[in-house]
Amino acid sequence: MEKIKKKLKKNKGIKLWEKAKKLILGGNMLLSKRPELFLPNFWPTYYSKTKSCYIWDLGNNKFIDMSYMGVGTNILGYNNKKVDAAVSKVVKKGNLSTLNSPEEVELAKKLISIHKWAHQVKFARTGGEIASIAIRIARNYTKKNKVVICGYHGWHDWYLSANLNKKTSLDRHLFDNLNIGGIPKELGRYTFSIAYNDFDNLKKIYKKNPQIGVVIMEVKRNYEPQKDFLKKIRHFCDKNNIVLIFDECTSGFRETYGGLHLKYKIKPDIMLLGKALGNGYAITALLGRKKIMQKSSDLFISSTFWTERIGSAAAIATLDEMKRLKSWKKITKIGKIIKKEWKKIFNKYSIDYEIKGLESIISFEFKKKNFNAYKTFITQEMLKKKILANNTIYVSVSHNEKVLNKYFYEFEKVIKKINFINKKGLKIENFLETSEISNGFKRLN
Amino acid sequence: MEKIKKKLKKNKGIKLWEKAKKLILGGNMLLSKRPELFLPNFWPTYYSKTKSCYIWDLGNNKFIDMSYMGVGTNILGYNNKKVDAAVSKVVKKGNLSTLNSPEEVELAKKLISIHKWAHQVKFARTGGEIASIAIRIARNYTKKNKVVICGYHGWHDWYLSANLNKKTSLDRHLFDNLNIGGIPKELGRYTFSIAYNDFDNLKKIYKKNPQIGVVIMEVKRNYEPQKDFLKKIRHFCDKNNIVLIFDECTSGFRETYGGLHLKYKIKPDIMLLGKALGNGYAITALLGRKKIMQKSSDLFISSTFWTERIGSAAAIATLDEMKRLKSWKKITKIGKIIKKEWKKIFNKYSIDYEIKGLESIISFEFKKKNFNAYKTFITQEMLKKKILANNTIYVSVSHNEKVLNKYFYEFEKVIKKINFINKKGLKIENFLETSEISNGFKRLN
Repeated sequence: MEKIKKKLKKNKGIKLWEKAKKLILGGNMLLSKRPELFLPNFWPTYYSKTKSCYIWDLGNNKFIDMSYMGVGTNILGYNNKKVDAAVSKVVKKGNLSTLNSPEEVELAKKLISIHKWAHQVKFARTGGEIASIAIRIARNYTKKNKVVICGYHGWHDWYLSANLNKKTSLDRHLFDNLNIGGIPKELGRYTFSIAYNDFDNLKKIYKKNPQIGVVIMEVKRNYEPQKDFLKKIRHFCDKNNIVLIFDECTSGFRETYGGLHLKYKIKPDIMLLGKALGNGYAITALLGRKKIMQKSSDLFISSTFWTERIGSAAAIATLDEMKRLKSWKKITKIGKIIKKEWKKIFNKYSIDYEIKGLESIISFEFKKKNFNAYKTFITQEMLKKKILANNTIYVSVSHNEKVLNKYFYEFEKVIKKINFINKKGLKIENFLETSEISNGFKRLN
Repeated sequence: MEKIKKKLKKNKGIKLWEKAKKLILGGNMLLSKRPELFLPNFWPTYYSKTKSCYIWDLGNNKFIDMSYMGVGTNILGYNNKKVDAAVSKVVKKGNLSTLNSPEEVELAKKLISIHKWAHQVKFARTGGEIASIAIRIARNYTKKNKVVICGYHGWHDWYLSANLNKKTSLDRHLFDNLNIGGIPKELGRYTFSIAYNDFDNLKKIYKKNPQIGVVIMEVKRNYEPQKDFLKKIRHFCDKNNIVLIFDECTSGFRETYGGLHLKYKIKPDIMLLGKALGNGYAITALLGRKKIMQKSSDLFISSTFWTERIGSAAAIATLDEMKRLKSWKKITKIGKIIKKEWKKIFNKYSIDYEIKGLESIISFEFKKKNFNAYKTFITQEMLKKKILANNTIYVSVSHNEKVLNKYFYEFEKVIKKINFINKKGLKIENFLETSEISNGFKRLN
């Protein structure tokens, strides 16, 4: 087989990454963008420019992004013309001043018109902070401080402290053996985690902890809700004066125009949006019910850069574009095509697999203990063909037929090689030209 | 006197603000941009465009900004050409992807070359979150969770909980009677506040709380450090294994090229920058010493939108522009001119006043119990002349001689009116054409 060293000999990105690790804590600002999670020593790591679903690295190599598409931010593809035009206009006219941006009000109106149960919004710039705002508002409303989490909700104290309560709380939702240094121990008394679909555990935790006032969860992650899971939680929260928060930072705009809960017809008390809301530009939003928001008006929740108007201008344009293209339908359809093709290829080459995720954030796994080695091999072989790919695809509207055909053509060849290696009783590890990947997010594995 | 209603009859901004208060919690995202703090019912509130130190409202009225200049973000003035060009390039080439931005590494290098004591950086998008990152890192390093604060450090639990400890803790630093609902009571055990220059109180608090592991403070706010205040704190922290954090989000780049601590020659263990760092584009940074950063490498501190590259590209261009223009010298010089002129005018019209703040964030107060009424009057009269002004000026390089002359010409006329009102024994309240302003930040009053 052709060696990756030959194909990508001058990897400027990896050299820069070595520098970055010296200068920046952790090397970068998002764990899911570390090269060790994709292909140690060969992942391009840095980009110079993007377009549609293409990324150019620092050596001007052009790749197809069949992986994370900005880790879920770019449903409309990279460099959507309308969104970028809206942002360019803001840059020209001024993105921040002593006065406020009228775009904030327009965006608020748009989001509430999509989610009629909601009364008011608040905007922030990151997912972690919008979730923290939600917790503040919910705790203040019920005057009960204990929180049940089910999903990934950022890096803040109130969330990670679930692991102070029980060392394995976040294993399913984030990582095994998470370091939770720097968080006061007492916070461990406040945060509990449940597995998705484990309604009984919620009841059990509540019985011991009647001070639970907040349930924050992702509407759907890897699997479908079972046995009326969402409905039961909604009823349970209503009965016990618990604020139900749906964190839709990841799921929003993926299967519906707005929150995924619109599909399941279960309304939260507070919803969070982020990621795709600005098609790559930083903006996150909280929407809340009247009774809650009215009791929150004098809380001190304030930040200079939340007033910056690129975020709201980008979000307005993104909403318009998504609506025009019906992007949630398109990416769902593309996701289904990918799923079907994966199944076909895996079956053809006798791979024992599982496919999970949202319709447009799809992931496969082989039922192998050393799946990480297979994952590394897949990325290695696909990278030789200038395709960024592992086992997860965040679908975007830019993943058109031509792109998919190229992907499947190369992907099938890789799976065929794996089939050969398996059939000969060889070790996949011996075919890795670099070290195996480290574990990333549980939710993406 | 000419009535403000006549001068600004169609205030579209105030109409939009009424809508905004219905749709957005608190009406906007930053308390310091609420019209009630400037001139209820007449403050333009929203902007359509900016340039230099000019702002156009929604009715296309052009104002001079002699107030907050984006609340401290725009030292280079609005729409700096070089910074905007760097941002436009990023918009064109793609602002976010699955891969990382090389600009992050370049910015890290630049910031560390200015602050040689620092080893590594971390970037975020808002001041509140960069301060929370610092607290996490510091607590993890010393394994002591108690924090002493001195200044304003955002809206997060760890900070506001100072008021759970003592109801008046944040009066000096933020507001009187702050609502701290939604924060677990136990956190009150962790955060303590001291007044600026009150070193003895720090010693007293530490004596009772040897678990204090962090002191976070602004280097300078309203007054100069007295009796080696900074030096004493530095020694005290060294002696007792306490991490000293300088929050320079506001003071950075105001009197030096970098942190204000460079002027006082006292080095922190961690420093925070924000506000002016991207000249209005959202970017904040943490810089830390080697021994601390090395022990922080496995903490989970991660966020999608921190990887967005507008922030780092804007900051690189801003640093270059600031260096080229020596902007910290320029704004300090302009600040001194303003101070001198204020003094001259106040003395001429027998006003009993006090002037405080950084050299380029200057503020005056009249020694009157009803100063808020005077402040409202000043804003009202200045607004009639299309000048945004109260008692605080964040100086920018765009405040040139022409602008200052216009400002002083109008300002003197207002002070003359006040002198007339005072001399006649009349009440300033009777000259207000709208209701009096509410109290904003203590630190700006």
